[in-house]
Amino acid sequence: MLAIVAESTDRLIWREVPDVAPGPGEVLIKISTAGVNRADLLQAAGHYPPPPGASDIIGLEVSGVISAVGGGVSEWAVGQEVCALLAGGGYAQYVAVPAPQVMPIPSGVSLSDAAALPEVACTVWSNIVMTAHLAPGELILLHGGASGIGTHAIQVAKALGNRVAVTAGSRSKLDVCAELGADLLISYRDEDFVARVNNEAGGANVIFDIMGAAYLDRNLDALAPDGRLVIIGMQGGIKAELNIAKMVPKRLSVIATSLRGRPVDGANGKGAIVDAVVDSVWPMIGDGRVRPIIGARFPITEAAEAHRVLASGETFGKVLLTVSD
Amino acid sequence: MLAIVAESTDRLIWREVPDVAPGPGEVLIKISTAGVNRADLLQAAGHYPPPPGASDIIGLEVSGVISAVGGGVSEWAVGQEVCALLAGGGYAQYVAVPAPQVMPIPSGVSLSDAAALPEVACTVWSNIVMTAHLAPGELILLHGGASGIGTHAIQVAKALGNRVAVTAGSRSKLDVCAELGADLLISYRDEDFVARVNNEAGGANVIFDIMGAAYLDRNLDALAPDGRLVIIGMQGGIKAELNIAKMVPKRLSVIATSLRGRPVDGANGKGAIVDAVVDSVWPMIGDGRVRPIIGARFPITEAAEAHRVLASGETFGKVLLTVSD
Repeated sequence: MLAIVAESTDRLIWREVPDVAPGPGEVLIKISTAGVNRADLLQAAGHYPPPPGASDIIGLEVSGVISAVGGGVSEWAVGQEVCALLAGGGYAQYVAVPAPQVMPIPSGVSLSDAAALPEVACTVWSNIVMTAHLAPGELILLHGGASGIGTHAIQVAKALGNRVAVTAGSRSKLDVCAELGADLLISYRDEDFVARVNNEAGGANVIFDIMGAAYLDRNLDALAPDGRLVIIGMQGGIKAELNIAKMVPKRLSVIATSLRGRPVDGANGKGAIVDAVVDSVWPMIGDGRVRPIIGARFPITEAAEAHRVLASGETFGKVLLTVSD
Repeated sequence: MLAIVAESTDRLIWREVPDVAPGPGEVLIKISTAGVNRADLLQAAGHYPPPPGASDIIGLEVSGVISAVGGGVSEWAVGQEVCALLAGGGYAQYVAVPAPQVMPIPSGVSLSDAAALPEVACTVWSNIVMTAHLAPGELILLHGGASGIGTHAIQVAKALGNRVAVTAGSRSKLDVCAELGADLLISYRDEDFVARVNNEAGGANVIFDIMGAAYLDRNLDALAPDGRLVIIGMQGGIKAELNIAKMVPKRLSVIATSLRGRPVDGANGKGAIVDAVVDSVWPMIGDGRVRPIIGARFPITEAAEAHRVLASGETFGKVLLTVSD
């Protein structure tokens, strides 16, 4: 089969690699479209090796058609259109994936657009609901509101009955957030998110963060009593001073998570997250409260250009790679 | 009435102060016994001012007899023996306390011994169950296992069906922990708790910490995947470097809390915690699975000596102050 081989950060070559086959409990998907994630950029740069047992081909989510099923798989059949959360292997013609990580295409979404959903939906639901226990009426602050995760999180939080504050780096990105329902729009380049969230909303109950070290102390300042900071990205560094004395009186939580390294099984595993997403988020998509937000599409042969565009910050929502029509 | 007035850390003087009276929703308790807490030492040193509206007299827990009830209080009556969680005011002959913070004396416990329970029971239950969601079979690591909180937490965790690891500074303190049911005994002066917890138990699911900054990084190393670190004390400092990259792959939580600053009402308030303790911990005491552990008693006039003994680490369990027999 053909797949992307990363010779260097800007040389992502579409070429012949060994075929893959579904093992027991897996399905084989003929890929229509692959989603691009920031982790892909790190992996192409050699900084984010795949977890043990995972494909060394880049790519954490796809949509496509089931072309084979492995032993013991009864819930999926050849010919079904699906999307899937992967531990790797998405930038290819075919990928083998554990059956619990496969999802139906949500009602009203095209096969290609569905590739924009697995990572954002599983990341947002596992963190803001299963981990941070966002309660109705609470305020959630989303850093990077116009990102793939941000644009999805705004819609899900509004569907859950929450108030949503976002940060973004430009007026056009804040306009995207506003159109999706965000209530409090903060331009991080020229405004202080701590002051705005505290003054206009009494602090955030949950903060969903992609900056890590750079925002740690300010995020503590922006949290309301009993607030939860959930860190899923470290674009601003990995080490920072934690002032525990700021946390105690407000009873704050700092939680850092990742989706990729989770096991398939168990209460905190990918299968449980996928099931919760299909039960809770797919109906929000079916009735139009949540939709995939796609900022750019490229043919898979132009994966390097897709990475450059995502890294540049010049787009919003998801970036997709078309493998086959 | 008489109460302790802190003229300096080692001059805690029992002398006349203005009487207190119960306001609406409060009860007045004629104090039998007051419990000593580390926060009292900080307050005597001027480092821990009482929260707004609280008494400026030291003392966070008492047992005694209700001597008056304020307006709107129907659940308590004059003459009942009770114990109570306070925001302050315990080192005195009388204290006025919001009715939701008052508890019955557990079955089989003397009036005087009951003063050893409110702070430890509410602290342990609110943190390990309501905050850290300790699940049956999980391993909890308790730093300071022979302290008042530690000796109570060992018993509650064992009653809940958990494995318990403890650190302490001497063999005699570890013997106290073992007698209460602790499974893994770690002498912090000459052993590495990270290595022992990882090698002998696969890491801790929950760590209950009183050291703050000094242990932060090692606590992260000692946690198992999905582990929760709950910090309730900062005896080892308030600021430390947080390595977020250690947290992400294991999906760790760092939570810091306090009991004293919580509101009376609400899902995270003192009343809800007291109700949960009476419902869940008092039965454990009634059937003998949990008992008050009292290391030393002093007359209230010797409060300064009681503080010295607690600070010295030469005792274990709770230190109590007898006000009236």
